[in-house]
Amino acid sequence: MPTRALALDLAAHPVKTDAMTTGTLTIDLNAIAANWSALNRMTASETGAVVKANAYGLGIERVAPVLAQAGARQFFVAVAEEGVALRRVLGSGPEINVFSGHMPGDADMIRSADLTPMINTVDQMIGHVEALPGHRFGLQLNTGMNRLGMDPAEWAALRDIALNQNPTMIISHLACADDPDHPMNAAQLEIFREMTAGINVPRSLSATGGTLLGPDYHFDLTRPGVGLYGGMPFVDAQPVVSLDLPVIQTRDVSAGSAVGYACGWVAPRPSQIATVSGGYADGLIRAMGNGATLTHKGRKVPVVGRVSMDLITVDVTHLEQVPEHLQLIGMHQSVDTVAEFAGTIGYEVLTALGSRYDRVYIT
Amino acid sequence: MPTRALALDLAAHPVKTDAMTTGTLTIDLNAIAANWSALNRMTASETGAVVKANAYGLGIERVAPVLAQAGARQFFVAVAEEGVALRRVLGSGPEINVFSGHMPGDADMIRSADLTPMINTVDQMIGHVEALPGHRFGLQLNTGMNRLGMDPAEWAALRDIALNQNPTMIISHLACADDPDHPMNAAQLEIFREMTAGINVPRSLSATGGTLLGPDYHFDLTRPGVGLYGGMPFVDAQPVVSLDLPVIQTRDVSAGSAVGYACGWVAPRPSQIATVSGGYADGLIRAMGNGATLTHKGRKVPVVGRVSMDLITVDVTHLEQVPEHLQLIGMHQSVDTVAEFAGTIGYEVLTALGSRYDRVYIT
Repeated sequence: MPTRALALDLAAHPVKTDAMTTGTLTIDLNAIAANWSALNRMTASETGAVVKANAYGLGIERVAPVLAQAGARQFFVAVAEEGVALRRVLGSGPEINVFSGHMPGDADMIRSADLTPMINTVDQMIGHVEALPGHRFGLQLNTGMNRLGMDPAEWAALRDIALNQNPTMIISHLACADDPDHPMNAAQLEIFREMTAGINVPRSLSATGGTLLGPDYHFDLTRPGVGLYGGMPFVDAQPVVSLDLPVIQTRDVSAGSAVGYACGWVAPRPSQIATVSGGYADGLIRAMGNGATLTHKGRKVPVVGRVSMDLITVDVTHLEQVPEHLQLIGMHQSVDTVAEFAGTIGYEVLTALGSRYDRVYIT
Repeated sequence: MPTRALALDLAAHPVKTDAMTTGTLTIDLNAIAANWSALNRMTASETGAVVKANAYGLGIERVAPVLAQAGARQFFVAVAEEGVALRRVLGSGPEINVFSGHMPGDADMIRSADLTPMINTVDQMIGHVEALPGHRFGLQLNTGMNRLGMDPAEWAALRDIALNQNPTMIISHLACADDPDHPMNAAQLEIFREMTAGINVPRSLSATGGTLLGPDYHFDLTRPGVGLYGGMPFVDAQPVVSLDLPVIQTRDVSAGSAVGYACGWVAPRPSQIATVSGGYADGLIRAMGNGATLTHKGRKVPVVGRVSMDLITVDVTHLEQVPEHLQLIGMHQSVDTVAEFAGTIGYEVLTALGSRYDRVYIT
């Protein structure tokens, strides 16, 4: 290995005190509010907000109040436990809807946090009215995704009984809304219309993707999720997240030197390698490796070798000076670009964001 | 879709109250202690414990005290922030070593939590002795992984100065220890010996994989990580983790019906599909899809369609009765089996385990 010039003059090296060893995750709450408002302006309907999975990994305690202030009155979570946490954040007033419905064991949470379960089955309906007679609920219908909600036959049998109990809304979910040309969209729309024909209850079919499909898909309430957080398919979303990772050290390696676990990259020429704090334990999905990039002032800095648990290594040979931080997500690389590095979708990049980062909220 | 028999007799459906909608992650602390002891018995050296990344996702507050009670006195974390959290858990006494060394901004944490940084560069050495003169530190050498630690030339220049400051230990890390036949292992061993020849300071080269390579690799201290938590390459590890996911609902689908996002699976025959609580926001890595399985009493239950954020769908056609929970990780499928479903390694499956689970510790 080439010898590096060593500067051992102690006095010449002031200790910096404004840095950290963990990455900095910056979350722009104003951008989230702006994205909600932009999606709200696209429809004549009410606009809710999906804040499940800790507001897609960005922090329900900070994100939900911003959405409430922007105007959201209908919030959606995946499970009752999330609804309890959200009620503590929001206080009374906004409606908190639970996609998984009323599961065994949920009654106390649903009552005490005043949650509105989206009933998915006849069994859930029965359990709900037995445990919490008169408590609010919505209904979820399966229009073809075959994941949550009542099938047409089940719905036909339950419909009159359920409607007599005054449901708050009837919802379904699109399987292919991210692909506007997919015939499944129109097919699900038609089934949703058939299943809810003649019913005077607010209806909701669309998350972000469905909202972008146009007015036919809006019904009474849209419920965007990923679009709020700057992810595709809402191409005009304001970016919300940036992620800057500290450089721990740099080294020169000779041609033929291997870098990282299993010698995952071999230097084709003399190179300078930086070791950066951040790894798959921080949500830098391990499938991302050679081919991924960080950036510095818009210049790409290639990841070399495997992502390890706490560290990644990058090729900084072409930089005149190695900065204290390199950026993974930001104005030069979106959440969706990073998702492509890992062969996945922006949603997973968001929800994988780890707990070790220093989280900074722009307000 | 076939019509299901509907049971609308309210009184016949008692509400269960002992379940939850989130998965149950069971962590066997006794198995972690047993794995530490088994790895400790393999060597004549001291045995430390790597508890970075929140003890590989399993919870540092519960895991670290168990390792301390088993006998570990040398703990390892990735960054100073983790060391601060660990010191609160362990109290004074055990040594807490920080792999990333002494980074700008770390001095207050290192002093107040009495951490021992593993110095990786000349700059870190200078920063450390300037900011915290006399404070304990170790040294990390690069023996070929080219990720962390001083290169041979850098080390040659710093060696005498550093040794005069009484380092606690000298460590390095193997790049290919999971592959016993890889020539890199012997090469790194040789370089580590050369770089530390004639030095009377405790030495450590091996994590779990290196420990299994035999006594040449043990030196004064081994520092197992993944082996403690039941992951490969420690094939005799006691399993530590089991993960049981609640079934939210089941439905019959006809042949040709699609399931999940982007119609990711199409039923080849009439099938019964269960929707299970747990998705990539819970660390069920999205790359895992068709081809993965859950289990019920040892019988495989195939995942069908895409993993979504909070839910997965599985084919339960062959089960006589659909249970309340299906298992992803446990005695029938190890962490490493699940890793293969996602094209990754057990380490990532562990560190990805999400925060929504109900965590139950076996003590």
